[in-house]
Order: sequence, then C-alpha cells, then structure tokens
Amino acid sequence: MKYDFETIVDRRNTNSIKWDVEASELPMWIADMDFKVCPEIIQAMKEKLALQAFGYEEADREYFDAVIQWYEQVHNAHLEADWMIFATGVIPALSSIVRRVSHVADNVLVQAPVYNIFYNSIENAGRHVISSDLHYDGHSYSIDWNDLEEKLSLPLTTMMILCNPHNPVGKVWTKDELEKISALCEKHHVILVSDEIHGDLIRHGVDYTPAFALKHHKQTISLVSPSKTFNVAALHAATVIIPDKNLRQSVSRGLNSDELAEPNLLAIPGTIAAYTQGKTWRDELIEQLNINFDYASSFIADELPILKVVPGTATYLMWIDISKLNTDSATLAEFLRKETGLIVSAGEVYRGNGPEFIRINLACPLSLVKDGMNRLAKGVNKFVNK
Amino acid sequence: MKYDFETIVDRRNTNSIKWDVEASELPMWIADMDFKVCPEIIQAMKEKLALQAFGYEEADREYFDAVIQWYEQVHNAHLEADWMIFATGVIPALSSIVRRVSHVADNVLVQAPVYNIFYNSIENAGRHVISSDLHYDGHSYSIDWNDLEEKLSLPLTTMMILCNPHNPVGKVWTKDELEKISALCEKHHVILVSDEIHGDLIRHGVDYTPAFALKHHKQTISLVSPSKTFNVAALHAATVIIPDKNLRQSVSRGLNSDELAEPNLLAIPGTIAAYTQGKTWRDELIEQLNINFDYASSFIADELPILKVVPGTATYLMWIDISKLNTDSATLAEFLRKETGLIVSAGEVYRGNGPEFIRINLACPLSLVKDGMNRLAKGVNKFVNK
Repeated sequence: MKYDFETIVDRRNTNSIKWDVEASELPMWIADMDFKVCPEIIQAMKEKLALQAFGYEEADREYFDAVIQWYEQVHNAHLEADWMIFATGVIPALSSIVRRVSHVADNVLVQAPVYNIFYNSIENAGRHVISSDLHYDGHSYSIDWNDLEEKLSLPLTTMMILCNPHNPVGKVWTKDELEKISALCEKHHVILVSDEIHGDLIRHGVDYTPAFALKHHKQTISLVSPSKTFNVAALHAATVIIPDKNLRQSVSRGLNSDELAEPNLLAIPGTIAAYTQGKTWRDELIEQLNINFDYASSFIADELPILKVVPGTATYLMWIDISKLNTDSATLAEFLRKETGLIVSAGEVYRGNGPEFIRINLACPLSLVKDGMNRLAKGVNKFVNK
Repeated sequence: MKYDFETIVDRRNTNSIKWDVEASELPMWIADMDFKVCPEIIQAMKEKLALQAFGYEEADREYFDAVIQWYEQVHNAHLEADWMIFATGVIPALSSIVRRVSHVADNVLVQAPVYNIFYNSIENAGRHVISSDLHYDGHSYSIDWNDLEEKLSLPLTTMMILCNPHNPVGKVWTKDELEKISALCEKHHVILVSDEIHGDLIRHGVDYTPAFALKHHKQTISLVSPSKTFNVAALHAATVIIPDKNLRQSVSRGLNSDELAEPNLLAIPGTIAAYTQGKTWRDELIEQLNINFDYASSFIADELPILKVVPGTATYLMWIDISKLNTDSATLAEFLRKETGLIVSAGEVYRGNGPEFIRINLACPLSLVKDGMNRLAKGVNKFVNK
C-alpha cells in the first residue's frame, strides 16, 4: 500500500479520551481510529498554519465544491451547492436540528440498537425517544415495517433519526429500503434526519445511498463529515445537506443561534484536502479494514465459537452477539477490562437488543487487532470457566 | 521589538470574513487583528500536527494550569483548577449560559452601548434585553448606579452581562466599581456573567480585575479566552470560570448538551502555548497598540477636530464620537465605505448612544493605520462638504 496503516501512533498523554487509560489497557471502544491521518490532510493543515492569521472565518465555494465532488466521485450522488450548510460536527448539528425542527414533548423515532448519543440529543432537548427496534433473527437485522409505520404515524412523532449506514450493527440500507423509509416519513409529515458519518466506510458490497439522493428528499436532512473516514474527529467539521429551501433556512438559523456554524482555522482546509486528495487513502483504509475484519472474524469463528459476529458491511465497528454467554454486556465488558485490559463498548448503551452484544473498534494497526483478539479470547474463556 | 508587528499578512481569499472585501477596500471593523500570530503558538500547533492522530479530545490539567499561571502572572489574580470548564468560545458559552441559567421571558441586563452580539445571545433565546445605559458626559462613560440597581432589582431580571473591560467604549472598570456591581447582583439574586475577552488588552493605566477575583464572586461567571489577545479567534478555545460549585455544575451540563465542551485538535496546545509562552509577545503587542492609538489620536485631533476620540485604556478598538457631523453612524459608515473603501463599525449596532459613534479596529500594522486615517480624513471632509 502507498500509505502507512501499520505504525502504532502513541496517543497516550495527548488529550485523547480513548487513550486516557492505564498503561496495560487496550482501548477498542470509542469510535476514532489509531491510524496516522492521511498525509495530504496534514499537509493542508501545515499550509494553513503558514498563513499566520487566524481570525473569524466562513466556508466558501471551494469547500462546498469539494463536498459535491466527493459525493459525485465516490458515491455517484449529486447535490447542489446551495443545499449545504457548514457545521462544527454531525452530533452538534443533530442536537441543534432536534431543538429547531421538533418541539418539546414530541417523539423522535430511532431504530434501536443504535448509536447511543442519538438518545442524548433527543432527551437533553426534552423530546421523547420512540424506537422501532430492528428485528434480529439470530443472524442479521431488518426493519419491522408495520411497526415503523405505526410509530411514524403517531401525531407526536415529528422526526426520525436514521443511522445510514447503521452503527453499531454495520448494516448498509438498500436504496429501496431508504426510498420506502423516506416515503413513509413524507406520508406522515416526519422530518428524516440521516446520520451519514460512516457513509464512506462501506467495506464491501453495495454502496450506501445518501438521503439527499432519494426521490423523496424534500423532508430529508443528511449529515456528513470527513471525521470518521479520515480520522479527524477533532477537526470539528461537518456538512448539513437539506434540499428543501424552507427547511434549510430554519435549520441554518438554528445552527447560527446555537453557535455551531463557524469553522475553526483547520476545518475548511482540512475538509477540502480530505475530499479532493483523500480518495486513495480512503480506498486503502478500506482494504486494511477488510484485512482486520477478516482476521477478527476468523479468529472468533475458530477460537471463540461461543460468540457470533454480525456480518455487517459498513463501519470499522464489529458487532458481536454474546447471548450464549448468558450475561449482560456491561458485566462482560467490565470483566474483560479488569481481567485483560481490553476495553470494548457494552452494547446496552445502544438499547434495543444491545445488552446481548459488544462493539469492538477495529480501526487500528493489525498488530493491535491481534492483541485485542488474544485479550478477548483470554477474557471470554476466563469468564466461561469462572 | 523581538516580534514582527509590521508585516502585512495578505488575508484575502483565506476564508477570512474581515477580508472578504473589494481589492480597494480596507476593513477596520470586525474584531480580529492583522498581525502575524505569536510564533510560539504556531510552533505548538505544528507540534500537534506531527502527532498525526486527531480523535476525540478533552482538556487536561496542563491546560487548566496554564490558565491559572497566566492569571497569576499577568493579572495577579488567583483561581482554582476546579473552577474551570473548557468551551469552544466566549460567545458560544455565553449563549449557552443564557439558555441554562435564565428562563424564557426573563430580563438580561446589559450596559449599552455594548458589544452587539450580547443582544443576539439574549434575544435568540427568547429573553428580553434590559439596558442600564452608560452615562456619557461628552467625554467619557460612567454607570448610573441608581438606574442600575433599579433594573437589577426587577423580579424578572435574573442575569447581567458585564463587558469587562468594556467594548466598544474601551473602559476598564475599577475594582471598586466591580465589587459594587457584584454586590448588587448578589443582593438582587442576579447571575453576573463577565465577558473578559479583552482583559489582556489594557493598553496603559490600572489593570482589569477578573470577576472571579472579586469578594462577591459566588454568583459570577468569568469568560476568558486567548482569542483576542493572541489573534486566534478561529482557535475556538475559551475557559468558563465559576467559583460556585452548584452554578458550575449547571453550566457545565448546559455546555455539554449544547455540544460546546469539546476541544478541536489545536485548541488545547494553542491555548497552553499562548498562556505559557506568549507574555512577551502580548507585551509587545500592547506597545504596538499604544503606538497605533497615539498616531490615530493625534491624527484625528490635528486633522479631524470635528471628531472626538473617547479616551479608553482597553481593547484595540477606538470609539469615536461623530455627533458634530449631524448624522447617524450607519449613514457615515456607508459613505466612508463607498467614497474611500474604509470599512468601520457603525455604532448603532451597540445601541444606547451608539448611533453617534463609529468604532475603528486599530490592530494592524501602523502602515494600515495610516492608510485608514487618511481614508477617514478624506471621507469625513467629503461628507462635511457635500
């Protein structure tokens, strides 16, 4: 490969939340990567520093053109420059949109198990979570369409937050499924907010479809960012994509009032570099993720048949069924950390059937994946035999 | 001087809001500086880029120690590490605090003319602005204490936003005045939020006093940041200082829900460098600002006696009385821009007696100050003779 996905960056004592752990611990929970950032992005950041003047900024046409180009080139999806608003992050934008577009005491629909921070965005704003839980058949997840429509049709359900593709189950929704969801939202006057932060991380198979590219996109809001794809969570840059003019105007006003619309000094050049020069790096990243997933899947199949990997095709997060261990995920996660130093995400935070799963972050050099798997085997075997 | 305050940085086409103007125009309005940033800060930023991993971050003890050290060393003011919360900016924090600490339909007291964005933070949150206008005697500004107490004592007045030191009038409040304000706030159960973003920019005379250093600091919130001092608005870093534990807990929760509590990848190292290595640069900056203010004051006294400079000792913003021109500031500002390309802030946005003033940003190389003064003279003379 052209780029380096092998070197382990020492992130301890660097303000990293993930690596603020004991020397003997291995964090495979919080969703940022341990690979070195795409060098073209670092280069663009260095060039920005050379300017030596860092006053108030705003996104310009070059920024929005870079987003357009990426979605055309990588996802064959077209969007218009005036559909976009800069925001300091996907979750900050999501929280602002919940406050702006729905009302106190409304229902906001999610599909549990799902990214736990959605619950914060909803509940911190005084809205209620209503979940149309994904159906799990012991192998993979699917939508219970009757349940979904019933809950979307409730008078107090005014917004749905879609995880597209789905974290933590790793599922890429088909275009047909997405058209059906957005048509249901349109029918029942529900704003569809689509978190697409993992959209560039489809490891194999059919690509994801952005919500803005759907036929029924009038009531959609797509949230995209280079942060997961390029490991730049702390770049604080995201783009809110809203085809409908009135909805866009309202959300824009909310982002502004909530002070989430101003870029920091690296956000614009970092994003432009990612979207215009980062494709090869991202393609190689996916190769590396496939190597890591193949390794971990085989390891678990061979060494830990009591666990079952849910076969997703998206994200760098592996979703593992631990139901045969007859425990809850929090107990297991605590045990693994105490006994082996391996830190995984306990599935219960994602609600739904999450308590029977753990989530492991495989976005790290293969040597760390191997270390993690050995710890997992040691910990699970010890747990079984205790 | 050790540092360079002469070189003009070309900020056009760099996403700068200030410099998004015509080639012939000279922007002296928005409050960021045209000096090159303190090189020690740039160096710290470069070192952070060398880490090449930019995941989720949080402020650490080193960050808070740097803030403590700066306030001890520069302002002889002591604060405790656990009084502080990181935030992405003074205004984002202010808006969040308005939402968290006051209630819809409450009065938030300000002292007009004052920094215009305070009005947005208050009104965007559905609170009412109540102003105890500063008294102007034709020379300088002072507080009308009876009016202030009367308005603080209203049952619906629950918060006061103090500009300490005061933008745009450039006034440093004395310690006695501040003790009196905070005692009044305590007496009338009003939370005192003190915007201290210009606190390091006292050009001469007595230093400013941070609100946390007052005797009655139980109900105070000080907002500080290196952004004005070191010209790093786009660093997106500020510190919220709250001595009282319960109030701090509430504000911290609000900053978190409002997604304003996470640092971007440069915020921590940039701030630490500013506060631990930036003192000499800041001292020289003040020397340069005094040179610029002396030049502009003399120029206006000699060439434009129809204008009157309000003799403040703080900020890099000059507040100029234009009342003898018999016009409003918006009309004059528009005329100046059209006729000479000079862009100044029309005082009306600051409310109070602002319509009779303009604000000029003098934080730029002296050559630009001279250019600006020549344009001002040309424009005002043309205006008088039209």
